[in-house]
Amino acid sequence: MSVLESISGPGDLRRLDSGELTRLAVEIRDFLVEAVSKTGGHLGPNLGAVELTIALHRVFDSPRDKILFDTGHQAYVHKLLTGRQDFSLLRRRGGLSGYPSQAESEHDVIENSHASTALSYADGLAKAFALRGEHDRAVVAVVGDGALTGGMCWEALNNIAAGADRPVIIVVNDNGRSYSPTIGGLASHLADLRITRGYERALDMIKKTVPRAPVVGPVAYEALHGVKKGLKDVLQPQAMFEDLGMKYVGPIDGHDTEAVEHALRRARGFGAPVIVHCITRKGYGYAPAENNEEDCMHGGGAFDPATGKSVAKGGGVSWTKVFGQEMVQIGAERPDVVGITAAMLHPVGLAPFAEAYPDRIFDVGIAEQHAVTSAAGLAMGGLHPVVAVYATFLNRAFDQVLMDVALHRQAVTFVLDRAGVTGDDGASHNGMWDLSILQVVPGMRIAVPRDGARLRELLRECVATGDGPTALRFPKGSVVADIEAIDRIGSMDVLARHPGSNGARVLLVAAGSMAATAVEVAERLAAQGIGSTVLDPRWVKPLDPALLEEARRHTMVAVVEDNGRVGAVGDAVARLLRDSEVDVPVRTFGIPQEFLDHAARAEILADIGLTPQDLARDIIEAVARAGEHDPAAETAPAPRD
Amino acid sequence: MSVLESISGPGDLRRLDSGELTRLAVEIRDFLVEAVSKTGGHLGPNLGAVELTIALHRVFDSPRDKILFDTGHQAYVHKLLTGRQDFSLLRRRGGLSGYPSQAESEHDVIENSHASTALSYADGLAKAFALRGEHDRAVVAVVGDGALTGGMCWEALNNIAAGADRPVIIVVNDNGRSYSPTIGGLASHLADLRITRGYERALDMIKKTVPRAPVVGPVAYEALHGVKKGLKDVLQPQAMFEDLGMKYVGPIDGHDTEAVEHALRRARGFGAPVIVHCITRKGYGYAPAENNEEDCMHGGGAFDPATGKSVAKGGGVSWTKVFGQEMVQIGAERPDVVGITAAMLHPVGLAPFAEAYPDRIFDVGIAEQHAVTSAAGLAMGGLHPVVAVYATFLNRAFDQVLMDVALHRQAVTFVLDRAGVTGDDGASHNGMWDLSILQVVPGMRIAVPRDGARLRELLRECVATGDGPTALRFPKGSVVADIEAIDRIGSMDVLARHPGSNGARVLLVAAGSMAATAVEVAERLAAQGIGSTVLDPRWVKPLDPALLEEARRHTMVAVVEDNGRVGAVGDAVARLLRDSEVDVPVRTFGIPQEFLDHAARAEILADIGLTPQDLARDIIEAVARAGEHDPAAETAPAPRD
Repeated sequence: MSVLESISGPGDLRRLDSGELTRLAVEIRDFLVEAVSKTGGHLGPNLGAVELTIALHRVFDSPRDKILFDTGHQAYVHKLLTGRQDFSLLRRRGGLSGYPSQAESEHDVIENSHASTALSYADGLAKAFALRGEHDRAVVAVVGDGALTGGMCWEALNNIAAGADRPVIIVVNDNGRSYSPTIGGLASHLADLRITRGYERALDMIKKTVPRAPVVGPVAYEALHGVKKGLKDVLQPQAMFEDLGMKYVGPIDGHDTEAVEHALRRARGFGAPVIVHCITRKGYGYAPAENNEEDCMHGGGAFDPATGKSVAKGGGVSWTKVFGQEMVQIGAERPDVVGITAAMLHPVGLAPFAEAYPDRIFDVGIAEQHAVTSAAGLAMGGLHPVVAVYATFLNRAFDQVLMDVALHRQAVTFVLDRAGVTGDDGASHNGMWDLSILQVVPGMRIAVPRDGARLRELLRECVATGDGPTALRFPKGSVVADIEAIDRIGSMDVLARHPGSNGARVLLVAAGSMAATAVEVAERLAAQGIGSTVLDPRWVKPLDPALLEEARRHTMVAVVEDNGRVGAVGDAVARLLRDSEVDVPVRTFGIPQEFLDHAARAEILADIGLTPQDLARDIIEAVARAGEHDPAAETAPAPRD
Repeated sequence: MSVLESISGPGDLRRLDSGELTRLAVEIRDFLVEAVSKTGGHLGPNLGAVELTIALHRVFDSPRDKILFDTGHQAYVHKLLTGRQDFSLLRRRGGLSGYPSQAESEHDVIENSHASTALSYADGLAKAFALRGEHDRAVVAVVGDGALTGGMCWEALNNIAAGADRPVIIVVNDNGRSYSPTIGGLASHLADLRITRGYERALDMIKKTVPRAPVVGPVAYEALHGVKKGLKDVLQPQAMFEDLGMKYVGPIDGHDTEAVEHALRRARGFGAPVIVHCITRKGYGYAPAENNEEDCMHGGGAFDPATGKSVAKGGGVSWTKVFGQEMVQIGAERPDVVGITAAMLHPVGLAPFAEAYPDRIFDVGIAEQHAVTSAAGLAMGGLHPVVAVYATFLNRAFDQVLMDVALHRQAVTFVLDRAGVTGDDGASHNGMWDLSILQVVPGMRIAVPRDGARLRELLRECVATGDGPTALRFPKGSVVADIEAIDRIGSMDVLARHPGSNGARVLLVAAGSMAATAVEVAERLAAQGIGSTVLDPRWVKPLDPALLEEARRHTMVAVVEDNGRVGAVGDAVARLLRDSEVDVPVRTFGIPQEFLDHAARAEILADIGLTPQDLARDIIEAVARAGEHDPAAETAPAPRD
């Protein structure tokens, strides 16, 4: 039996000797590479957190002590050490979540994958334990240096530091990266150092200069400010923490289990807020990850464990790539167009733009609020910013979109990738909120392309809009084959028309990626004698008033969208009709307003009835019942049409 | 002619000599006290910013240079110096806005009153000017020490510091307060110092220790770290800025125009990001404000200029006060209930709770994100947090409400004050978004009390909810007389029933504060022979399914709410009916989804048709038209009822 197999819970870890711990770390890395090579997942961050996680579970007594992982994709090792060693269905239906999950284990706390939140939870937990007199319970938050660029961390640090009697242990897992290298005033020193001198040398410097027993507190602060420039830069976060009045332990070699353990025990002993600063390397111990310059194999699909190369089948061109290509074209024509990313240059597809126009790309760190409001500033200064984020992360800057951009009527374009059901990353990655919250924003225009051609076309319409904000949203994955319009009504495309034979006529309004589905639904309706028109509004806010005339020509309106049903396009269409007193029955289909468990996108769409079969059946039944209930039908037996 | 009257624009300022500048400052203070005593407004912050603003406009050439005021209520002096000296209708219809306004002046940039945003705008503007080659244009952001507790400032500082070639001048207006004293790790040192030693002594210390010519850069950093403890604490922000790699000028006596001017000229000369740290006193120069311990006369209604005492008429008990009183009661019964405020203890009514239970109140600073996520932590730790904020400020933590609280099914109660049209503070203070964005949040329950009795009752239902989040929202101002129910259907109250005589029957669904209006509307409908039922759902999310049965008994449903019309209660009622295939026509009345200009609440309600007269007329006409268009009416001439 391997050491890893002998670990059924954190208690088992505490019996291991030094040699066994070393073997355990090796076994865990082998396990992770092997497992993730088959399922895909977040490899790099977890390879960097092996020793750190082992040490955490040896020093702290979870679940009585609370160990919180910020951006939970770094919790695979934690899962392995808390009784979850079957990774065969990682991020798949019925398998382990790719993030902590309270449903999986009492050792899991934060399920959310949005960054920079853990310190705030920790502050709340520590306040609760203090008030309840549970003074022996420790609260430990593990946070990356990338997440520290998020403003929430600053808010939390400011509060944690104020509670001298509430011990919160903040473990900074400093690998110099979020997806790509961490940016900003503080981080740039770190990054410079690593790039110009090599990371190994910096680590060596630390090992030679700083004794194994971590130096602590004000003494350390003074002492470390005296060491030479290179090391001082590595340690800069410390100065900030000291200024806040927090204790500091470090820097620690985060791949030395004993050193980390020793530091954590000392930190726990303080009984006061403390930072434990661990230097780690993303992808550590697996050469293909360590040497991957883009993101150290941050996350992705299945790969060949021998080489780290993706084994994904062709799969076509992604929406992201189409966006990225068009941005390069637009950038050539429009020198005023600039790109903004929140620490996700490659994932959002802006890398080619950045390469073509290096002075026109701004990576602001994991800082969506600043991304949005600095975009308002850029627009006020005469440029046209394109803010590219995952749809779910725009939620983090709703107030900034509303007040800083829309209230000021600034022409900023938001490009929302991974909109709709994304699936395997679970509830917090689904981009099912944007069409609802953006509907609320006065003056916001929202475009939803149905295919690659429309993405290019609508992106150009967005950046050509000069008098207020626009948003463009598209799903994860590959673009579908282009669906050509058979007619244009105002700004809307007609994708299909079926005459029908039994008097019922359904206006199918399909938002973006649901267009192909709606076309198939229409065919199924036609087979039952039900006529229909399939309309792609292209712009879902504002809706083209010509939609009203179309609605009047039909006996039912059905709206299909890949967003939460509440407050999105379905509601908007219904409101438009209601406000014009067009009382044609409306039926709206979208994602139920619930948090969805992780599974493949297709599985989820089937579950929630967003397949052509399900939608056709639901609409056929609704049409039949509307006929039965129709007051006209009741008083006049002959069909009205 | 006074000096002030001679100033028609910033250019005139530059001609004044030292004596005239001193007189100008006195005249401005006299003007502010006199003007604001009549209209109400933000007095304290502006009294503290007189010399600072004069110096800014002497050194920088607005509007070519951009002067950005964070939390724009500190811009009254700026208005006086940029051609706006008629304050007679301040914050009233047709008069000056209480915040900067692009419509008023080319010198105004940020209209938003939400805090901590200015540095992000500044970063964007500076990037734009750099890219466009407009290197001579300066960008100056004026930010309070309170606003620095907001995470956006951290995100912005991290980015500004990274742009060594993009000069942004950050003027920290450090008065140690937001509404009430600034809190947190950094600020607590400052606050301690001021409370225990007196502010004058600290200022004197600075004057004696620091030469008039500001010390600058790394040298200053080292030097100042050597001075004695008291001063070091005052200067702590500097250390943080230095760690980020930014230049620092200060501390400056912010009430010495020449000193500020000198510092600003040096700062401008650097051509790099720089902090200018000015120590000011909120309410400076007007004893009643200086001596007001609660908030230094931060803002409020009309007052007697001789005493600073409010001259407001009785006006009844505020919603805020009823909430505050009930919280004290609940606190006595429920030791697990704790309060959270984001730097607004008094304005949100939690001061009595804080006095009664000082260890159960947490002021997190201007940090709504942390307020919400630390509440999730408190709930995980076994407490029931009540997060009390102005409705409009909850927007700043939408993602935290959704992901950190709701996804984790934590029992946190959000109390949203100043919901609906607030009016005189303009677009960014109206609380017209919460009912829309909270509808999107799975598992969120929303209560909307119609009067004080219901506020108490529903607050208790909220804190008794143990399996997920709740929200309670109420308007600004005084509670109305209690409106007793005549019947209860499920969890809903029936407030009135009118039989009618012409067959039409309207179900009036009134959310919260619109209940009294709806009761009057029903009477007006009855006078026209139109029957109605007035229903207060009390909980607008989830809606009680019993609403469906009621709807079926009526020929029209009309929903009235004091929130933006998009995605709020009207849409929710319509969706409920649609999903159950109850195709009774629905009409929804609320705030048009636009940014509203400042005016009195009553004026705005009249403008947007939310008066009993307007609503009754609209509904009567809608009923008449629905009768005409009714397909049943068309095919069967006799009325169906």
